Amino acid sequence: MLMTVTAPGEAPMDMKSRIDQAMEQAIARAQSLSAPPRLMAAMRHAVFPGGARIRPQLCLAVARACGDDAPELTDAVAVAIEMLHCASLVHDDMPCFDDADTRRGQPTVHRLHGEPLALLSGDALIVMAFETLARAAHRHPQRLGGLLATLCAATGAPDGIVAGQAWECETHASLSRYQRAKTGALFVASTCAGAQAAGAPHEAWRALGECLGEAYQVADDIRDVMLHSDELGKPAGQDAQHHRPSAAADLGLLGAVEHFHHLMQAAVSSVPDCSSRHDLRRLVLSEADRLIPQSTCDRIARQQTTAASCALAARAVPLRGALA
Amino acid sequence: MLMTVTAPGEAPMDMKSRIDQAMEQAIARAQSLSAPPRLMAAMRHAVFPGGARIRPQLCLAVARACGDDAPELTDAVAVAIEMLHCASLVHDDMPCFDDADTRRGQPTVHRLHGEPLALLSGDALIVMAFETLARAAHRHPQRLGGLLATLCAATGAPDGIVAGQAWECETHASLSRYQRAKTGALFVASTCAGAQAAGAPHEAWRALGECLGEAYQVADDIRDVMLHSDELGKPAGQDAQHHRPSAAADLGLLGAVEHFHHLMQAAVSSVPDCSSRHDLRRLVLSEADRLIPQSTCDRIARQQTTAASCALAARAVPLRGALA
Repeated sequence: MLMTVTAPGEAPMDMKSRIDQAMEQAIARAQSLSAPPRLMAAMRHAVFPGGARIRPQLCLAVARACGDDAPELTDAVAVAIEMLHCASLVHDDMPCFDDADTRRGQPTVHRLHGEPLALLSGDALIVMAFETLARAAHRHPQRLGGLLATLCAATGAPDGIVAGQAWECETHASLSRYQRAKTGALFVASTCAGAQAAGAPHEAWRALGECLGEAYQVADDIRDVMLHSDELGKPAGQDAQHHRPSAAADLGLLGAVEHFHHLMQAAVSSVPDCSSRHDLRRLVLSEADRLIPQSTCDRIARQQTTAASCALAARAVPLRGALA
Repeated sequence: MLMTVTAPGEAPMDMKSRIDQAMEQAIARAQSLSAPPRLMAAMRHAVFPGGARIRPQLCLAVARACGDDAPELTDAVAVAIEMLHCASLVHDDMPCFDDADTRRGQPTVHRLHGEPLALLSGDALIVMAFETLARAAHRHPQRLGGLLATLCAATGAPDGIVAGQAWECETHASLSRYQRAKTGALFVASTCAGAQAAGAPHEAWRALGECLGEAYQVADDIRDVMLHSDELGKPAGQDAQHHRPSAAADLGLLGAVEHFHHLMQAAVSSVPDCSSRHDLRRLVLSEADRLIPQSTCDRIARQQTTAASCALAARAVPLRGALA
């Protein structure tokens, strides 16, 4: 899918492989130095095999759009973002939160390695993310502070993924604040840090991350309702079971799908003028189709009134037209 | 105790207050931006009131010995180290590890705020540590990479406090490797990062951190056996209950006390030649007395043969003499 998102003059390469390879190197560096073997096994299980790796791919794509003059640093930033994401999944799956048995079609880390190592592997991945960044930044020390600030803001309190998860522990939470923190923050970091890794101004890339982040959260809410556990690779129906804020519950399924398409349209429009603009827009379209395929839209539409179904079909067309 | 550890020409100040104030500012910065209130309360509970704050005090003392030309950065490094320490305590206290009811004489974070917020507050403190560092380093970008590397190495895998905790999940563990990672690593970071914050070479300060770290772990093992829960402010007898490696079990109580004094002597000898050398040596002596007072040595000695008691008394004198 992402083979086409390349900088001018650069041979196409598989970004997902590039990310997996950089991730493997980061983990192997710790493993070779006689770390506790069970901890290392749990950390490996948390990151391999990966999911869609969309956040680091987004980071690489933006870095390339900005020239990618420090590919080692870009790789490290992408790896750091994916490690922070995986750490949050490991902790969110634990018994005191979702108590999930499966993730990406496999047993969750705590099911396979026990709670203590799930807790510690999440901690160690958070630290390894920043360590990977520090190691790669020695040739570009002027970029490190900004990158570190971006990644920390996306992860901690008050507005990062940890804070997002913590809103689930409150009796009252704003749906948009919850979603911005739990999902949006790391998408914003993915686009902004991609630009920062290449030494470029990052504010122009914030809107792309914001729109995609919100769209992903809405898609996640829809998929949690619409798909079965074996399609998701993780337990379905978690939002209702844990009484979590959800766009599907808040807007209805049809309203949530409309909102998703609106956000993806906004993401497409936000891509700054650059040589990779067309490829980035194709990436957004491709992701929209992967997350909520037309068949899912059709299923939802059939569950609604005929009038609502027509409205949905009418709205879906302009987005796809804009990206053709 | 630490009023006397000052740089030439600098007015004495209370380092513990300086640390608490910097910690308060870091927490308040997140709290003022409408973070989830329960998460912030759990984070506050994890860091206030503090314990001895020995790691950040050590960091400040070394920075001062090296000129402390960037006190804002030094404060941030000290705060980051204490936050990483507090995060590890919160996670170690959780039911899947020690299941401790009390810490510093108060309910543990998970007892007061529940497991989900204990898990998240630990995560958020790890991130806040690095964020605090990033924010303070903008005037000294050349120092950030080294500081970040030092703090990450002390915290993650393969040799940091998370790895140290993970050795408890292995069926076989080397006592020295376990102790070096679980306790020693953050002491080494405290001395080395203190020097790095002041832009000074840090390798000369590693031995002080190593000796103190090992001594603290040995002292912890002894105190776990010798003191009651109300004296410790946390449950006693945890090492035996959780079948953890322990110097007290490995060497016997008398052997452990001898080893402790040997390590404190080595710490004293390791302090590099600098204007604050005398004050740093006094700090070590003061800490030795605080951790294992003479009265505790006497109690242990009384439990042993008269001959062993005499040997202990004879060994204790030279250390105190060297610091007079």
